[in-house]
Amino acid sequence: MVDVPRRSVDDPLGRLVDEFSRLPGIGPKTATRLAHHVVRHSMDDARALAVAIVDVKEKLIHCSTCNAITAVDPCHICSNPDRDQTRICVVEEPFNIPPIERTQEYRGLYHALMGVLSPQRGVGPDQIDIHGLLDRLEGIQEVIVATNPNVEGEATALYLARLLHAKGIEVTRLAFGLPVGADLEFIDEVTLARSLTGRRSV
Amino acid sequence: MVDVPRRSVDDPLGRLVDEFSRLPGIGPKTATRLAHHVVRHSMDDARALAVAIVDVKEKLIHCSTCNAITAVDPCHICSNPDRDQTRICVVEEPFNIPPIERTQEYRGLYHALMGVLSPQRGVGPDQIDIHGLLDRLEGIQEVIVATNPNVEGEATALYLARLLHAKGIEVTRLAFGLPVGADLEFIDEVTLARSLTGRRSV
Repeated sequence: MVDVPRRSVDDPLGRLVDEFSRLPGIGPKTATRLAHHVVRHSMDDARALAVAIVDVKEKLIHCSTCNAITAVDPCHICSNPDRDQTRICVVEEPFNIPPIERTQEYRGLYHALMGVLSPQRGVGPDQIDIHGLLDRLEGIQEVIVATNPNVEGEATALYLARLLHAKGIEVTRLAFGLPVGADLEFIDEVTLARSLTGRRSV
Repeated sequence: MVDVPRRSVDDPLGRLVDEFSRLPGIGPKTATRLAHHVVRHSMDDARALAVAIVDVKEKLIHCSTCNAITAVDPCHICSNPDRDQTRICVVEEPFNIPPIERTQEYRGLYHALMGVLSPQRGVGPDQIDIHGLLDRLEGIQEVIVATNPNVEGEATALYLARLLHAKGIEVTRLAFGLPVGADLEFIDEVTLARSLTGRRSV
């Protein structure tokens, strides 16, 4: 969150621009557009948005075990005895969990790191929730690292692999390769190289 | 605004994602990120955002003359007798006014069209506030069209020019050319062509 100083109550528009600017990925220009949108549309719309924001804070928390967003603690995945208790899928953020659930290919547990290792941004192992993962390893046979396929996600995967191999846990990584439905012509070389080295017999 | 059906109160996160998705330029993925950000940060931050949203609606309106965003009607520009009452600068949106004010090169009045002509999106002259502009032409000598330098902005400028020339009003358009500080190497051809046809003696 960018630390924007809060303006006086005499400048409601400036203050809303500031508040929107505090959200991730929202720069001052987008914030200005959003604020003007609010002025332009109905009070009902404004109230619905405001209520939804406060509601989410009042009703939802992070699961104290896996960091997923939940109304009950532990979350419905952590507390479900039918889930495979020997596997943890590690993701960067809680919002990475629902897409994996929707594949219906995974029946184990999750752990959201609440970030990713990034020496450039000064994010080390103590700034993300690796500690919580290490506390959950009893009975775990495999940790599937589902961090993003970029430099930071890869660095985090390698760091976790080193840490977990030392504890005798199998560490796997999501496969790299061609996105389904893609056109070879438009695939970048790095992905293509990965899809070659990862080729499988048919 | 995209018309997203509102979800039940039993799904606060889904509802906030929906509400964020209703904002312009916010797709479902960005909305999801924003909603998770709200869950992750403090209740104080959530409340500050919610209050700012409702505050803006309670305290600000569109000027009934020029459509600028204002706490008083008419706005401080429309009601300022020191402004040049013979010129109106036409912009697409109210948020286009402050940047022009900051140049300190313009002392006339404004009119925000609340949109731009776009046959593709089904926006015709009756869907934007051209009528309000026509009602303000008494004593006006020049209308400066400051719509965006793209196809829709140009079409709107041409439409207004035809309309206003017929009433004997001078219509001018912001100059096209090289952005200050740009590198010729990276300027697109259309801009370069415009900067050539618009060249001025030094």
